Amino acid sequence: MRITRVEKITDLKHLNLFSMEYRDRKEQEKTWVYASRKKIAPDPDRADAVVVVPFHVREEKLVVIKEFRVVLGGYQYGFPAGLVDPGEDLIQAGKRELFEETGLKLTRVLGKSPPVYSSSGMTDESVSLIHAECEGAPSSRFNEDSEDIEVMMLSREEAGSLIKEPGLKFDVKTWIILNTYASKGIL
Amino acid sequence: MRITRVEKITDLKHLNLFSMEYRDRKEQEKTWVYASRKKIAPDPDRADAVVVVPFHVREEKLVVIKEFRVVLGGYQYGFPAGLVDPGEDLIQAGKRELFEETGLKLTRVLGKSPPVYSSSGMTDESVSLIHAECEGAPSSRFNEDSEDIEVMMLSREEAGSLIKEPGLKFDVKTWIILNTYASKGIL
Repeated sequence: MRITRVEKITDLKHLNLFSMEYRDRKEQEKTWVYASRKKIAPDPDRADAVVVVPFHVREEKLVVIKEFRVVLGGYQYGFPAGLVDPGEDLIQAGKRELFEETGLKLTRVLGKSPPVYSSSGMTDESVSLIHAECEGAPSSRFNEDSEDIEVMMLSREEAGSLIKEPGLKFDVKTWIILNTYASKGIL
Repeated sequence: MRITRVEKITDLKHLNLFSMEYRDRKEQEKTWVYASRKKIAPDPDRADAVVVVPFHVREEKLVVIKEFRVVLGGYQYGFPAGLVDPGEDLIQAGKRELFEETGLKLTRVLGKSPPVYSSSGMTDESVSLIHAECEGAPSSRFNEDSEDIEVMMLSREEAGSLIKEPGLKFDVKTWIILNTYASKGIL
C-alpha cells in the first residue's frame, strides 16, 4: 500500500477535507477522504491536542468536566483538553487547558502518552494524554464565552455510577478511563 | 448555549463537512465546522462504528492489529474495528469485523460500552466498544483489498514493551487499554 497524492478539497479556516490517493495491495488506485485541521502534512512528533487526566490529590478524586459540545448539541463528559497552541509544549498546553476549563492547578505530571490517533479512519488528529496531579478549588470563571463547563470530582464509586447512567454522552477516552478507574478492569 | 442551524457544506460520498450555528453563553452567534459520515442528524442511540477488544482465551493474550492506515500514510496499532452496516446490530458488526480483519471467531461478549464519542471537537463520530473472548488461528485471508493487516497477540509484558517502542503509531483507545493491560494503572 502506498500514498500517491494528497489534495486539500475545501478551504475553511479551522477544519478541512483532504483527498488522499493510494494504491491498494492489488495496485488498484483508490481514494480516501479525511478531515484535518492541518495546513500542511502532519508532523508525527507533535500532537494536535492535549488531554489532561487530572487527579485531585487532596480530594482523592478524578476530575471530569461536563461540557457543552456544539457538535453533539448537548453536554458531554470528558477530560479537560484542547489544541496545543503554536510555541507551546505539551505540558504547558495541559496546564493552561486545565486551568481555563476547571480553575485547577496542575502540580505534578505522573505520565504521558506519545501522540496517538483519535480515529484514523476519518482524521489525522492526534492527541497526547497527560496523567497529572492537581490542586485548588474548581471554578468556571476562566472559561471562554464559547465554553460552558461544570467541573466534577469523582471517587471510584461515583465514576462507576456515572458511566451506568443511561442517556449521558461520554468522550471515548474518558469512558474507558472511568470504567477502568471504577472497576479496575480493562473494559 | 443552543444550536440554531446546521448546514451540510460539502457533498461527498463518505465524509462531509457540516457547519453548525449556535449562540454562546453571551448570546453571540458563532459557527462550528465539523466532519460527519452522516446524511442526516445523528442518532445518539446507535454507534457509527464498533471497536472489538478481543482476548484470545487459549493463548491468554490480547489481540491487536497492525494495520495500514491511508490517512496516516503508515501502519497503526489498533483493535479490530469498522462501521456498523445498515441492518446489523452492534454484536453482529463486531463479529464480522473481528473475523474479516483477524480470522478469529468471537465466542463470548464480556462487556460493551454505550455509543461514545471519538473526538467531539471535530466530529460527531461515535463508537461502541465490545470486550470479547475469541478463538481460532489468526489469518489475513479475509482482508479486503484495501486492508493490509498483521494480527498480533500480546501478553501484558509484550503490550508494555510495544507501547514503549519509539516511532510507532497507536490508536488512542488501543494505547490507553494496552497501557492499562500492561501496568494495571489508569494511564
